[in-house]
Amino acid sequence: MQLITLTTDFGSVYPAAMKGVILGINPQATIVDISHTIPHADIRAGAFALYSVVPYFPADTVHVAVVDPGVGTARNPIVISAGGHFFVGPDNGLMVPAASSLGYMQIFKITNFGLLGDVSATFHGRDVFARIGAYLSDGMPLEKIGETTIGHIHLDFGTVEVEADFISGEVIYVDDFGNIITNIKASDMLKKFNFKEQVRVFRNTMPFLATYGLARQGELLALIGSHGFLEIAVNRGSAAKMLKVECMDKVRIE
Amino acid sequence: MQLITLTTDFGSVYPAAMKGVILGINPQATIVDISHTIPHADIRAGAFALYSVVPYFPADTVHVAVVDPGVGTARNPIVISAGGHFFVGPDNGLMVPAASSLGYMQIFKITNFGLLGDVSATFHGRDVFARIGAYLSDGMPLEKIGETTIGHIHLDFGTVEVEADFISGEVIYVDDFGNIITNIKASDMLKKFNFKEQVRVFRNTMPFLATYGLARQGELLALIGSHGFLEIAVNRGSAAKMLKVECMDKVRIE
Amino acid sequence: MQLITLTTDFGSVYPAAMKGVILGINPQATIVDISHTIPHADIRAGAFALYSVVPYFPADTVHVAVVDPGVGTARNPIVISAGGHFFVGPDNGLMVPAASSLGYMQIFKITNFGLLGDVSATFHGRDVFARIGAYLSDGMPLEKIGETTIGHIHLDFGTVEVEADFISGEVIYVDDFGNIITNIKASDMLKKFNFKEQVRVFRNTMPFLATYGLARQGELLALIGSHGFLEIAVNRGSAAKMLKVECMDKVRIE
Repeated sequence: MQLITLTTDFGSVYPAAMKGVILGINPQATIVDISHTIPHADIRAGAFALYSVVPYFPADTVHVAVVDPGVGTARNPIVISAGGHFFVGPDNGLMVPAASSLGYMQIFKITNFGLLGDVSATFHGRDVFARIGAYLSDGMPLEKIGETTIGHIHLDFGTVEVEADFISGEVIYVDDFGNIITNIKASDMLKKFNFKEQVRVFRNTMPFLATYGLARQGELLALIGSHGFLEIAVNRGSAAKMLKVECMDKVRIE
Repeated sequence: MQLITLTTDFGSVYPAAMKGVILGINPQATIVDISHTIPHADIRAGAFALYSVVPYFPADTVHVAVVDPGVGTARNPIVISAGGHFFVGPDNGLMVPAASSLGYMQIFKITNFGLLGDVSATFHGRDVFARIGAYLSDGMPLEKIGETTIGHIHLDFGTVEVEADFISGEVIYVDDFGNIITNIKASDMLKKFNFKEQVRVFRNTMPFLATYGLARQGELLALIGSHGFLEIAVNRGSAAKMLKVECMDKVRIE
Repeated sequence: MQLITLTTDFGSVYPAAMKGVILGINPQATIVDISHTIPHADIRAGAFALYSVVPYFPADTVHVAVVDPGVGTARNPIVISAGGHFFVGPDNGLMVPAASSLGYMQIFKITNFGLLGDVSATFHGRDVFARIGAYLSDGMPLEKIGETTIGHIHLDFGTVEVEADFISGEVIYVDDFGNIITNIKASDMLKKFNFKEQVRVFRNTMPFLATYGLARQGELLALIGSHGFLEIAVNRGSAAKMLKVECMDKVRIE
């Protein structure tokens, strides 16, 4: 258990303080950045980032995740154990979609403050979560870190409705290509639509294809992304810019 | 052979899935990001990034490179062995300038699909290239991965013409300083021009100098960049913004 | 001594050449990026980044820092030893606030050019500082690298004046949240103002609070940041954008 991932909305500089803390406690840790450019305070975007990459990490990985607009207020610091992975961060839902996708979630409230040094009011990523993640990666048992708890903040990617002639859902993420990722799962999409069919989305008609390069350059397409959700894209372009679509927008596929 | 570099146009989040896959196969691998912000689908910009840094890595490094607008279409997944380095990625020319600069290229088409799990149509960086790179870094011989092939897509940085009183070429990269990097090599430039001479480029007259700080602040200059190509820069400013120059633009030095 | 941090204004691609050089010399090194997006040539912003995270790294860490608009001109390449850490970079003040905060600074001018290969005029980050940092991390004694020197360029974060009814200082950094970080230390601020008091800054009245989430969403607040300096922020927003404030601006708290 030496692998630690980091997911934050901190941008540059601050994540390095977390890494210094981690390597001070566990010099053998291997640290992987998932993202430090989650849109600020966008808990659901952070949840999607974790959800989409966590399954590709080996068991025993510790995922430290900090999109935490409530830092220093009443929200609890927690650890979730699920499917052999550990998640360390604030109890605001951020880690729930990823953890629950891996298996049964056991949730611990961090209570052993003796493991921490001075804790600032504004940077628990450095002063709480990085430290706890480092101890976990170093083999410390969860029982020494906190107490099991039942209550926790839930978070999901919103409701999908599968109707007779359309599916409606929400935009949950816009990636760095400008691909628009919805909360509509492959299984729901494939119940209604076949590949190569034309679909109507965001007032545009476009083909439903297997991959980007099957559309003409600059052309819109619908596809199942590598994360297993319906995605609206432009071959070699940005669908989000072309369609002026943002996270949380409603989407309807006809 | 434990060192793996990554070069993609993926931005954030997706490269972490590649790293999870790599560390699941070879937990001892050391991973170095070359860039994940190559302009989307700009194969030549990715080729320049690889070309300019690969010589500074030790032999036995595995370079996984994925700027791959053709993902999921007919293009082949390949490994190139050259000068003791390995390159893993799509057969679209991306890896050719870097590999051929290191020595004779031996090219393998990836055919051992038993090494792969489920392969998505849209993310071969994660499902093909990261896995193959990890096996290579872990010592698997190339013969177990694929079959030698002769044909491959060629790519170079375009034509340079050295005439009596000018040199013409192309812009191949604009770096994060806004420095404009051309395909004109130091040797061609130094045949025609001497340091401290005035040259005329992009309708501006500027000195040809050894380094940025020899120009006045905010002033244009021509220089040989650390990659060995002619570069147009502004001391403490962005030449690309000042001159409104982009990749693929023609350049002429008088 | 195997941990190396990197702080530059290079953006993408070029830092990877530094990492290739380091891992070629010391394959056991663990490399942590502090930032590669320091505003170009902004030595004081780079100094702040180093200053704010260096204390969280364990002793024996080697910090290679290159914000170096004078590359290839007369400025000296130096190593600073302070508080058990090592700093490698140009003698332009960049490393001084971080190093001097750790303890007595011993300064060495790099003179052993035998440790270097070909040195380009424009990329000492790769050709000088990465190499020296790698040798240091590998246990080479400072005496083999250079000679002690006394003179060096000083740099601080500017003057703070604590008057009867106001404190004045300067903006030293704007972070990726848009938080405005001043050079006014917690101790000076707390001498004059109490938490929950209203203060007047940049022609706005705002509360002085312990953390972001105690202000209403979209509301300005003053707080002591995790780096120990007075910071002006907006809960879930960008204070720098709202107030149109930049680095080096004057600030006055009433």
